Amino acid sequence: MIKAVLSMLLVLVVVSSTFAKYIPKSGKRVPQTLSRGWGDQLIWAQTYEEGLYWSRSRNKPLMVIFHLPDCPHSQALKKVFSEDNEIQKSLDEEFIVLNLMYETTDKHLSPDGQYVPRILFVDPTMTVRADITGRYANRMYAYEPSDIKLLTTNMAKAKKLLKSEL
Amino acid sequence: MIKAVLSMLLVLVVVSSTFAKYIPKSGKRVPQTLSRGWGDQLIWAQTYEEGLYWSRSRNKPLMVIFHLPDCPHSQALKKVFSEDNEIQKSLDEEFIVLNLMYETTDKHLSPDGQYVPRILFVDPTMTVRADITGRYANRMYAYEPSDIKLLTTNMAKAKKLLKSEL
Repeated sequence: MIKAVLSMLLVLVVVSSTFAKYIPKSGKRVPQTLSRGWGDQLIWAQTYEEGLYWSRSRNKPLMVIFHLPDCPHSQALKKVFSEDNEIQKSLDEEFIVLNLMYETTDKHLSPDGQYVPRILFVDPTMTVRADITGRYANRMYAYEPSDIKLLTTNMAKAKKLLKSEL
Repeated sequence: MIKAVLSMLLVLVVVSSTFAKYIPKSGKRVPQTLSRGWGDQLIWAQTYEEGLYWSRSRNKPLMVIFHLPDCPHSQALKKVFSEDNEIQKSLDEEFIVLNLMYETTDKHLSPDGQYVPRILFVDPTMTVRADITGRYANRMYAYEPSDIKLLTTNMAKAKKLLKSEL
């Protein structure tokens, strides 16, 4: 009897280990999203290379957001940013978007240093628009939640594309 | 009466446009995941820079998977890969993982060309392990679904870290 129970248990273990999906010891995780809360309905580029490719091929400006999960300024901006339907609609229809938590190797994306939150625009000619700045002289590409209208204005500037030299 | 109905409608429109979340014209989208189906329970690096940083700081090898959504070979490998609990567990506990649909600027990640699917290992010393290869002479870093045991063997090789010169 004990033998029968044991072998049934063994069969159960084998069956469940064969068919059950892997679950980490620390418990099931919610899959990470590319949006990271900056706009779940937008189609995000994964990498800077991908963003540049889409920007060139679709002739749309690229917005690059640098942020960190444990930075309260990033989180505050993200809340306002993701809930602003005007910004979300314009980004979806007229921009390529990329959000990054790690710096790239391209120094053009940090004209005045590496800080977060920081928003840079890149023209389809692959020129970083260092001329499109926020309100703060010491951190020219930083935005506070109260600067969201300025960000909208800057998006309008970025939509006026530079002429390609070709 | 008609006036009252109209003004109520107007209020409703204003209220809904203020509070409703942005939804694209083409309909609501499922947020993109970083895993892209290669293992929803794994913690994926977003970019190569991020993967290298994690690999160095945690002293774990990095696995980089190049794939494309419309490549049947990528999709077939992905199915076997994501359902293999041994691989998923080992990747979760002993590796840093990155999957990319676009090439990086680092030529070391394409020792014999840019094709998909292609799996490269990178040592925490930031050395691409070009010595860890698959079964095919013309595409040395390609794996078919039937090569999944070879991939496991290669993961074991990658876990034997190169000694840092420091």
